[in-house]
Amino acid sequence: MPLRGDWLFPTEIRFGAGRIEELGALCLRFGMKRPLIVTDRGLAATTLAERVLTAADVPGVASRFFAGLQENPTGGNVEDGVAAFRAWDADGVIALGGGSGLDGGKTIALLAGCGGSLWRFAWPDHETAQAERARVPIIAIPTTAGTGAEVEPSAIVTDERGPVKRAVLHPGMLPKAVIADPSLTVSMPRGLTAATGMDALSHSLEALCVQSFHPMADAIAASGIAMIGRWLPVAVAEPQNLTARGYMMAAAIMGATAFGKGLGAMHALSHAIGALKGYHHGLTNAVLMPFVLAYNRPAIESAMAELAATLRLEGDPFVAVQGWILDLRRRIEIPATVTALGLARAEFGRVADLAATDICAGMNPVPVDAGSLRSILDAAA
Amino acid sequence: MPLRGDWLFPTEIRFGAGRIEELGALCLRFGMKRPLIVTDRGLAATTLAERVLTAADVPGVASRFFAGLQENPTGGNVEDGVAAFRAWDADGVIALGGGSGLDGGKTIALLAGCGGSLWRFAWPDHETAQAERARVPIIAIPTTAGTGAEVEPSAIVTDERGPVKRAVLHPGMLPKAVIADPSLTVSMPRGLTAATGMDALSHSLEALCVQSFHPMADAIAASGIAMIGRWLPVAVAEPQNLTARGYMMAAAIMGATAFGKGLGAMHALSHAIGALKGYHHGLTNAVLMPFVLAYNRPAIESAMAELAATLRLEGDPFVAVQGWILDLRRRIEIPATVTALGLARAEFGRVADLAATDICAGMNPVPVDAGSLRSILDAAA
Repeated sequence: MPLRGDWLFPTEIRFGAGRIEELGALCLRFGMKRPLIVTDRGLAATTLAERVLTAADVPGVASRFFAGLQENPTGGNVEDGVAAFRAWDADGVIALGGGSGLDGGKTIALLAGCGGSLWRFAWPDHETAQAERARVPIIAIPTTAGTGAEVEPSAIVTDERGPVKRAVLHPGMLPKAVIADPSLTVSMPRGLTAATGMDALSHSLEALCVQSFHPMADAIAASGIAMIGRWLPVAVAEPQNLTARGYMMAAAIMGATAFGKGLGAMHALSHAIGALKGYHHGLTNAVLMPFVLAYNRPAIESAMAELAATLRLEGDPFVAVQGWILDLRRRIEIPATVTALGLARAEFGRVADLAATDICAGMNPVPVDAGSLRSILDAAA
Repeated sequence: MPLRGDWLFPTEIRFGAGRIEELGALCLRFGMKRPLIVTDRGLAATTLAERVLTAADVPGVASRFFAGLQENPTGGNVEDGVAAFRAWDADGVIALGGGSGLDGGKTIALLAGCGGSLWRFAWPDHETAQAERARVPIIAIPTTAGTGAEVEPSAIVTDERGPVKRAVLHPGMLPKAVIADPSLTVSMPRGLTAATGMDALSHSLEALCVQSFHPMADAIAASGIAMIGRWLPVAVAEPQNLTARGYMMAAAIMGATAFGKGLGAMHALSHAIGALKGYHHGLTNAVLMPFVLAYNRPAIESAMAELAATLRLEGDPFVAVQGWILDLRRRIEIPATVTALGLARAEFGRVADLAATDICAGMNPVPVDAGSLRSILDAAA
């Protein structure tokens, strides 16, 4: 069956290789005559950016790039983007990229529409601002297969004053439409394919383990995990394999759709490490994964039993799933420990303290505080 | 784990027993000060209707019932509802009921906001009208666990001129929010529990068999089917069992979320039989189910293999799934044939001709026309 479809939840998704060509018509449908294409510096210089610009170039649509995002975008980057939005007199945002381009674009659209300070939308200070009307439509175009930021209404932005990664939340940040075109991901280098794919896995895994009743999220998560096990090693080994790229792009969407249910300590720790050290978010999640699962074991035996059945693993479900993860990590060359990633033991305390204040810490299936988060890092050393 | 959760896709869902109490606050959030509660005649006279009225009765909200829907609502019912909406100077609709109350309420809200004739929104004449702005917010409250109409933007309305059941389509018919409270379903009689539950099963089964790439819909469908197999017989045997009622209500939501992918000949035939004979839609789907699957067998072997794995069935997957369905049908006393349902052989030709013009006929995994639809009825006789 060709990997092509039109999906209507959690937002409108046009899935399939080559569908980037629908971008111009999509802009017109949402009344975007002067979209700002928001992306990061690295991407703006590639032929991929040219392809997107060409696809947006239809009569009645004039687009302009803003490429002032760094990896792990900051509040300052977002303010620069809002200024670019006003200078171009833009009427919409095309958010293009991996997590940085997508989160940056979504946040710039939110703030360009609402004005004022970004941080009133940041957890835990976000409640009042949820009622403000977001006026700027967003089209999201992922160029990696991991974050799934294209299908969910939050963004992670670094507050330089900490530094701390904060979760910006507003329903208006859910893109109006997504073009999920796997052909845009074939140029990802091997390491980025592996790290972003493990990010998608971390989303589905943490969502599955959250202790609440959400059978749709659970079904999507378990199915997405099986897809990653089958196709991530292929995408890493054969970058041009569009079938593998297609399944991984679907799995990334599935991970972010599922994590509407919640996340946990992998993400709390990973956000803290990212804020302090700048390591790739997906890679950090991948390194932390088995250690967080081990900490959570008392609460996730039944979730692991369901997952082991989906993955058709024999034996003790928790042990079998851990083995499956460790094997996958080895095959795609993920570092085994946080020290191998570069984090020094002397930094564990600061990371754990920061992680304890993260939005995701409170959703972990087994309660965590700075002390227990530190113990997870000790185990992961 | 308590069967309670807040879900954000395919729309906002407040799931859990007792959550009907949140209705008043929800009305206020959507600016509904004068909602029209739309339901069918039978339901309006029950204590259940009183519970809903009480829940909506908060300061600042004044609601009024419109109970002029018949089972399988007609275009005339919808026009009556629009008149009631205007007479009450309403600003929103609370759609309450099984498929009839929900579809009726959604359609009345659409037409009250847009004016004019309903049939310009009816497939296949609906395209132009999709751009019209739907202005009337909808809160949906299911009282059965089957249709899933609470989470999708279409409705089936009988055009009395045929008579023919037509699919009314508009994105604005997706409810803003759903209160999915399983305690509202415990008074369903045994036969209605069985028939509506089989409707949910037909949605997930047909969606799973549609020949397009939609892994999220497939995962939800397969998981929903397993849930129905486990819990429908319990809900039929123990009407007050809130766990069974909760899982069935979740399975109904899952079926309708999945059928965004498409449906097929079960629904094409069932709509035609419903238009001509008025039999219960879910019951008709249940009777047709194994015969449509048998017709579709050449195209659905791989879908059945996935499903058999989810259901942990041994042996040939298609045969195993068919056996599983027949066993479930027997346990909840679904008639085995369309003639047992009351349809005469002399009517098969007219049913097949009408079914061939239905929106769902074109989505069936193996192409159908009036002749092949007739052959399915012959097999089901």
